[in-house]
Amino acid sequence: MPQNIYDDEDFFAAYSRLPRSQEGLDGAPEWSTVQTLLPEIAGARILDLGCGFGAFDRWALDQGAASIIAIDLSANMIARARALDNSGRIDYRQGAMERLEVPGPFDLIYSALAFHYVEDFAGLCAAMRRRLVSGGRLVATVEHPVYTAPSQPQWIQGSDGRELWPIDGYLAEGRRVTDWLAPGVVKYHRTITSYVDALHTNGFAVARLIEWGPDAGQVARHPQWRRERDRPMFLLIAADARSG
Amino acid sequence: MPQNIYDDEDFFAAYSRLPRSQEGLDGAPEWSTVQTLLPEIAGARILDLGCGFGAFDRWALDQGAASIIAIDLSANMIARARALDNSGRIDYRQGAMERLEVPGPFDLIYSALAFHYVEDFAGLCAAMRRRLVSGGRLVATVEHPVYTAPSQPQWIQGSDGRELWPIDGYLAEGRRVTDWLAPGVVKYHRTITSYVDALHTNGFAVARLIEWGPDAGQVARHPQWRRERDRPMFLLIAADARSG
Repeated sequence: MPQNIYDDEDFFAAYSRLPRSQEGLDGAPEWSTVQTLLPEIAGARILDLGCGFGAFDRWALDQGAASIIAIDLSANMIARARALDNSGRIDYRQGAMERLEVPGPFDLIYSALAFHYVEDFAGLCAAMRRRLVSGGRLVATVEHPVYTAPSQPQWIQGSDGRELWPIDGYLAEGRRVTDWLAPGVVKYHRTITSYVDALHTNGFAVARLIEWGPDAGQVARHPQWRRERDRPMFLLIAADARSG
Repeated sequence: MPQNIYDDEDFFAAYSRLPRSQEGLDGAPEWSTVQTLLPEIAGARILDLGCGFGAFDRWALDQGAASIIAIDLSANMIARARALDNSGRIDYRQGAMERLEVPGPFDLIYSALAFHYVEDFAGLCAAMRRRLVSGGRLVATVEHPVYTAPSQPQWIQGSDGRELWPIDGYLAEGRRVTDWLAPGVVKYHRTITSYVDALHTNGFAVARLIEWGPDAGQVARHPQWRRERDRPMFLLIAADARSG
């Protein structure tokens, strides 16, 4: 059973205070880059895995999506997402993305910062491919392996005062337990090798792999983000469902 | 003009003493993994970019390659490679891979630990694609961006005694000057994003991206390699020339 930290009361309260929770897509600094990976939304049948508060789904509906099914493991998240949807046209479902109970077909599968909670990514790739039309697209963001690898994922100070991100354990994939918003959050560290292999082996062609950090303009507006250019925080993935 | 550090006398002397220089392919611990990326060698027309002492070329000839053109910027390297080739059938040429003067077509372009010396990788990708048949393969190894990023690429000790690889500057691509075998070696740090984008934009489909480190068996035989699993040293790339 996947961990359902988002239904932990303290975690959910802290999560609800994050800029990306309060401001939706505009509170997610990687969103403008993610947008460049999306196919035409108008008319698209969309599946959103790990929808959270559903900001993407509301945006996609505004853009003319034909249908949207949005899944999240957390009852808290689904309740909030439903409350925020005035259209009644987004099909929110509580459930684990590892046990997809939606047949599809979809033109786009979208997932923001959720796949690093999934232990069996290759299995998920196979399930996603079966639900995408040929040529359909997967757009996903995950925590970058450089971000998830360390045994102690915290900036340290080098002897010359520079801040450094201390890597260890990069090639040792698997569970990482960190304290993020609440103690004991379980994530799965995977290398880029494994992301690419799982996609390729299960019928996807990888089109883009963006190691995301803020650009110069964002750093100018938010000087405290400067060090986010010293190591990539997110990996943005775009992959296309191959034929056959 | 690309830097020609390999014709620096001290550098060349030190390079010649490396296990991979003395023992050829068997002295390169990533070779067994690289082999899994190679297409059928028998009958293949091969271009080797940055051939060094030519160990790969001699191996490929033994495997029945139809033709091999091997290029290196260094006169030292080419002289040594020619001296080691008893067949006389490998076409060694001194020159910069940025100015490819070979028309092709080739079935395989191979390059070991050389692309990180190239500033304009996208331009090289375009040149390589024009020289490959459709469906032809590029197999390349480079220093991993996690390895090339740091301003001071040396292990440091954390407060608890663990060895850590200190990342900074990951998203700041470009020149890195390091002391490796000789002072002032110029390499170009590039993100995985840039490797993938340059390949994809110039007519390649990325098939594999292997973040290489020694496996458990290699670490058992060479205990001093254990920390090489804490951060990836090499990136192994396999990409196929798309049609059209």
